[in-house]
Amino acid sequence: MDFAHSAKAAEYLARVTEFIATEIEPVEPEYHRELARLDDPWTVLPVIPELKAKARERGLWNLFLPSVSGLTNVEYAPLAEAMGRSAIAPEVFNCNAPDTGNMEVLHLYGSPEQQERWLTPLLDGEIRSAFCMTEPDVASSDATNMAATAVVKGDEVVLNGRKWFSTGIGHPNCKVLIFMGLTDPDAHKYLQHSMVLVPLDTPGVAIERMLPVFGRHDEPFGHGEVSFTDVRLPASAIIAGPGRGFEIAQGRLGPGRIHHCMRLIGLAEKSLDLACKRASTRTAFGKPLVNLGGNRERIAQARIAIEQARLLVLHAAWKIDTVGAMAARSEISQIKVAVPNMALGVIDMAIQLHGGAGMTDDFPLAAAYSGARSLRLADGPDEVHLGVIARLELKKHLS
Amino acid sequence: MDFAHSAKAAEYLARVTEFIATEIEPVEPEYHRELARLDDPWTVLPVIPELKAKARERGLWNLFLPSVSGLTNVEYAPLAEAMGRSAIAPEVFNCNAPDTGNMEVLHLYGSPEQQERWLTPLLDGEIRSAFCMTEPDVASSDATNMAATAVVKGDEVVLNGRKWFSTGIGHPNCKVLIFMGLTDPDAHKYLQHSMVLVPLDTPGVAIERMLPVFGRHDEPFGHGEVSFTDVRLPASAIIAGPGRGFEIAQGRLGPGRIHHCMRLIGLAEKSLDLACKRASTRTAFGKPLVNLGGNRERIAQARIAIEQARLLVLHAAWKIDTVGAMAARSEISQIKVAVPNMALGVIDMAIQLHGGAGMTDDFPLAAAYSGARSLRLADGPDEVHLGVIARLELKKHLS
Amino acid sequence: MDFAHSAKAAEYLARVTEFIATEIEPVEPEYHRELARLDDPWTVLPVIPELKAKARERGLWNLFLPSVSGLTNVEYAPLAEAMGRSAIAPEVFNCNAPDTGNMEVLHLYGSPEQQERWLTPLLDGEIRSAFCMTEPDVASSDATNMAATAVVKGDEVVLNGRKWFSTGIGHPNCKVLIFMGLTDPDAHKYLQHSMVLVPLDTPGVAIERMLPVFGRHDEPFGHGEVSFTDVRLPASAIIAGPGRGFEIAQGRLGPGRIHHCMRLIGLAEKSLDLACKRASTRTAFGKPLVNLGGNRERIAQARIAIEQARLLVLHAAWKIDTVGAMAARSEISQIKVAVPNMALGVIDMAIQLHGGAGMTDDFPLAAAYSGARSLRLADGPDEVHLGVIARLELKKHLS
Amino acid sequence: MDFAHSAKAAEYLARVTEFIATEIEPVEPEYHRELARLDDPWTVLPVIPELKAKARERGLWNLFLPSVSGLTNVEYAPLAEAMGRSAIAPEVFNCNAPDTGNMEVLHLYGSPEQQERWLTPLLDGEIRSAFCMTEPDVASSDATNMAATAVVKGDEVVLNGRKWFSTGIGHPNCKVLIFMGLTDPDAHKYLQHSMVLVPLDTPGVAIERMLPVFGRHDEPFGHGEVSFTDVRLPASAIIAGPGRGFEIAQGRLGPGRIHHCMRLIGLAEKSLDLACKRASTRTAFGKPLVNLGGNRERIAQARIAIEQARLLVLHAAWKIDTVGAMAARSEISQIKVAVPNMALGVIDMAIQLHGGAGMTDDFPLAAAYSGARSLRLADGPDEVHLGVIARLELKKHLS
Repeated sequence: MDFAHSAKAAEYLARVTEFIATEIEPVEPEYHRELARLDDPWTVLPVIPELKAKARERGLWNLFLPSVSGLTNVEYAPLAEAMGRSAIAPEVFNCNAPDTGNMEVLHLYGSPEQQERWLTPLLDGEIRSAFCMTEPDVASSDATNMAATAVVKGDEVVLNGRKWFSTGIGHPNCKVLIFMGLTDPDAHKYLQHSMVLVPLDTPGVAIERMLPVFGRHDEPFGHGEVSFTDVRLPASAIIAGPGRGFEIAQGRLGPGRIHHCMRLIGLAEKSLDLACKRASTRTAFGKPLVNLGGNRERIAQARIAIEQARLLVLHAAWKIDTVGAMAARSEISQIKVAVPNMALGVIDMAIQLHGGAGMTDDFPLAAAYSGARSLRLADGPDEVHLGVIARLELKKHLS
Repeated sequence: MDFAHSAKAAEYLARVTEFIATEIEPVEPEYHRELARLDDPWTVLPVIPELKAKARERGLWNLFLPSVSGLTNVEYAPLAEAMGRSAIAPEVFNCNAPDTGNMEVLHLYGSPEQQERWLTPLLDGEIRSAFCMTEPDVASSDATNMAATAVVKGDEVVLNGRKWFSTGIGHPNCKVLIFMGLTDPDAHKYLQHSMVLVPLDTPGVAIERMLPVFGRHDEPFGHGEVSFTDVRLPASAIIAGPGRGFEIAQGRLGPGRIHHCMRLIGLAEKSLDLACKRASTRTAFGKPLVNLGGNRERIAQARIAIEQARLLVLHAAWKIDTVGAMAARSEISQIKVAVPNMALGVIDMAIQLHGGAGMTDDFPLAAAYSGARSLRLADGPDEVHLGVIARLELKKHLS
Repeated sequence: MDFAHSAKAAEYLARVTEFIATEIEPVEPEYHRELARLDDPWTVLPVIPELKAKARERGLWNLFLPSVSGLTNVEYAPLAEAMGRSAIAPEVFNCNAPDTGNMEVLHLYGSPEQQERWLTPLLDGEIRSAFCMTEPDVASSDATNMAATAVVKGDEVVLNGRKWFSTGIGHPNCKVLIFMGLTDPDAHKYLQHSMVLVPLDTPGVAIERMLPVFGRHDEPFGHGEVSFTDVRLPASAIIAGPGRGFEIAQGRLGPGRIHHCMRLIGLAEKSLDLACKRASTRTAFGKPLVNLGGNRERIAQARIAIEQARLLVLHAAWKIDTVGAMAARSEISQIKVAVPNMALGVIDMAIQLHGGAGMTDDFPLAAAYSGARSLRLADGPDEVHLGVIARLELKKHLS
Repeated sequence: MDFAHSAKAAEYLARVTEFIATEIEPVEPEYHRELARLDDPWTVLPVIPELKAKARERGLWNLFLPSVSGLTNVEYAPLAEAMGRSAIAPEVFNCNAPDTGNMEVLHLYGSPEQQERWLTPLLDGEIRSAFCMTEPDVASSDATNMAATAVVKGDEVVLNGRKWFSTGIGHPNCKVLIFMGLTDPDAHKYLQHSMVLVPLDTPGVAIERMLPVFGRHDEPFGHGEVSFTDVRLPASAIIAGPGRGFEIAQGRLGPGRIHHCMRLIGLAEKSLDLACKRASTRTAFGKPLVNLGGNRERIAQARIAIEQARLLVLHAAWKIDTVGAMAARSEISQIKVAVPNMALGVIDMAIQLHGGAGMTDDFPLAAAYSGARSLRLADGPDEVHLGVIARLELKKHLS
């Protein structure tokens, strides 16, 4: 195991960290306040394109994509952690979900036409995208439950169904979504589905509502419930051809989970920072909070938990880098379970140390909690990943 | 120990349960949807006064108040549990916080004038009220930190300071608040504070903002941050006279915590119901969710946790009824710690079994989670109550 | 719910508590030290029969048996708790497992001859007994796995098989055991097994070894592995006739679990006592341990956990008393899961507060831990009981 | 971070693993059974010196000592893990505590005479040693509580006091112990204590008793309570001179904790192996245990927990290797807390999956539990280490 970084990676980390500290953190609280004051918060405030332009100018742009940055997963991981401390940093560096995953898909599987039409403006940060996989009417943790269809008819593909938790679809710049649907129920179970590129303004596509997630709409990007009614597209909109949806989905998730998890670790570190500061400065019963009851123990346990989680993610990244996502399935599922739960524990502790203020939006903790909680369900609930880990573990004993 | 109910209490329970099932539950989902659609959700929808009128007509009104209902705490507890299953039921029966606590205070300590002006319309459900104790600038878990002042000058009392988490202050019918402030810093530590009745429209009272709690404003009642700037009132607005604020606050909390905790138990039962239903009907990997992995164990653990919590609250109620709130301090702190944490565990489990839907407002679970979480801080954080319990426990060993 | 005690029960409790405090506790430490010094610890030290005689003389004898004491389960429960504080008290009052369960079986199902031969000397405390149900070669949590046989041939019953965790079989006074085996594999699944009374000296019965349980042999009673090879007995040795073993086993367990759980609660209370004393008197870093870190919080959490567990057991006892063990299946399984886990947490905390001493036998904590741990497996592992609770919970939602 | 191994380290690991698999594991169960059958289990069975000779012959000897093996802490760690799977392997490779720590001390601080007299036979595996630091009468977690004295009088040092948990002192080959005592109460707090080499047969040294640890005496090495009464030794028996005890103790602990923790990880892996095997082969309710309830989830959680713990230890080892034990204080305390607790969880789960058998000594699980539990107290209880971690964490925020 070797989690060491190249000189280039170390330099990127230093520059990203400095950019966040000097350009983003000073303006972020006001960004959130201003957004909250808007009548229509589904708005891109001017500070975002300004920051994006600066980041791009400095070469801190699309670093998630190995072909751009030359970074391995192990090397990109600390950048993702750094970005995770801020709610807007990922977008500023054009490294935000779900666009990163969609760009990877287009990069790896897109046709030249698909790349030109969609990948180029995504890489330029000019448009945004969504990913439509989860469905409201079935337990989507079991992919074979998927009910939406992408039927090839002649030189067209026809989409029907209903999706939800389509993150980013509310963003004013969202122009395209990737739809996953059933193409051939008679094919091998991993060859039944297709992924299709769908311009958002295609007839038959309707955003039925934007979903509250733990009471928040997460403007301006949001999470949509989207219906597809006889949506007709040329067959060339299918990514990599019919029946390859499952294969693409699998590949999409490995690095994506590294990113999600490292961002959560950044969020947990930020929360622990805030907890330490608050507990050192607030006083009750004649002492700073940090000297009351079990507060120091909780801070220490948070430190241990964060360290373990970070090492586990780096280890999974190292496995993806060295043996590939397929051979790292257990490790990827391990971080998918461990990291959100760890982050929830740390954030919850920080909220408690902040008293009532921790529940408001005066601190980023309450929003962080909701975000972390959603990641115990997004991309497969804990329980499904535990099942994967157990299956691979038990396999070692069959012989 | 005797947690048995009189025939009268049993009859009340049957009638309250039936009212909720037939009058409230059928209309509640649409109530929430309608409220969410309003441009100004700080509105009392017509269904609320209609339901209130019906409840009052049937004699299911102000049952929380022993002098009205003749019920002990043990007897009222299951009514509070039943009401806790619905977000609006407590108000429908005129049994909602913080009005219940304020009515108790006025009933026990109010002058005839105070009672006529404020208690009567509160008991009639015509107005609502708020309670202003917690402050944003200090750790309010330590009451001696309180910075707001209620200074008696001649025949006036002058209020200054800033309060927050003043629940209910956003309600269109909120007309009065109870303010707690420091009157005499030189008095004995339990005789320094006063409680003052403040009409909401008194000059110098300003609602600075309505606070989001885990991203929700909880319209139409809400939680306010309120400033008091040279607010002048006649000294007769002081409840029970200067210096008795602490005494009143203590008395206010015992039964109030029973109510809060029993409502949470109702919420936990409701969440377990929903979890069982969802897990029995959704299918993944060819089985209902309930037959997958540890789901049955989690349902069983939830059942155990709820039973234990309910018995603990009944036990505390029985102690209040038989030996008084003072002698039941440990028991009251025990439920204050145990019940919200229990409820959070059950609700979180139910959310997980609902998948993404559990995070939206299609089910009452996400809102329930935020509400239960806030009760780990409201009325004193877990840590303070654990300290009380430990102190009383260790005292047994001193001799 | 009514957990109140009759005057008679209250009086018994006062007398049992006083007897333990004045007669047992002063001599118990030396009892254990003396036993540990013996070359052959499978010995009944004279103090035991002396204490038994005293207890019997004072009428504190066989109180577990309703027909003797006239106590309900709710009333007996606090006596069991009191006895649970001492490792030898249950035997002193002739209220120790597994004899209590065996006496109940004989009382309810024994023939007059069986009662005269075995129940009378057991009630007199002259002999002891064992119960042989669990088997080493199968997962005994599933009763249908049972492999031992009790085949009726003419007027004889022939036993074959291997049992283990036969508690008490090492006791010098153990004269009889109850054996459970398969009689008729073709009968209804609840009518296949029989219980047979087996004198310990019957040919074919061999104690293969005494089992260490977490490194302890629990002398002088112990836990045996016992083989049965063509053990022939008259058919009259079958309790209540062939095929009724399952029915008897079910009935045996309800009150027995109340006893086990209440004794564990006594043990947890004792452990919390010790923890409070130790933590108040030992000093580190200039403070008593109780003022360091999270120690007070842990003491408070232990208090909450014990209170909840006791109430849960009383509730289960009340259900057995009022609607019977069959209707109280969920409640009985609930305490079977909740109480040992609670006790383990409290004892472990107490061990930690005792430092190294807590691991030795200078305090009863290390032995208490092993004993409590074994009760997460004995009479069915946690997981099986959780399954029962979940099944009954989900049934409420089928309609 | 770089946890990679040199070719030499990888080769050692392969050879140690193979030696354990082919030479130790096949004979270990019979070793334990034979020892348990002995009247006097304080005996070195012949298989031990035979295995030691073989290991030494193959160059798998004293690998813990960098000056012998040339291995870093990161490189030695997996060897310790491999040895941790067996109760006797550490001794076979002459890598067992407390001798390893004592050899390190002698290697780093011993005079040539001390090294010749004690280090040489220890390195040869001819004698064993003990370490006497913890005291029965004070909370030894606070080093300043130490009451034993090592007073320099002329050219002699005189020892008085009482120590316990002196591991290894019962071993027939134990010839020397290292005693720590107070020399100069007026010196700076880190310069008050001395370490003294004490031949076991020195007049005034008395093993008062061998301590049971969770009911086990851990023969043939054991844990002693030792009294020192006017024990007189030449001043040359002091290691590195008077007043350096604290400094030596600190240095002794860093690598020692890596060893302990890695052995625990080996034990946890072994336990998980056993759990997987048992749960795959035992059947209840018509299914292998592994397909019942939450068993797979528990196996998965164990895998996650082990991976995180191992990475945390490797990280601490890497810090010791690269920046030294002083700069790695937080990391060392982190593993001291995290690893024993992790191991306890995994072992407990494995015990539960083994049913009653898990509590006996038919499997190494019950003994493993006791051993792991003792490590939550040995070398400082969890709570003290959490305090260290919190202090260092909070320091980052002072500025």
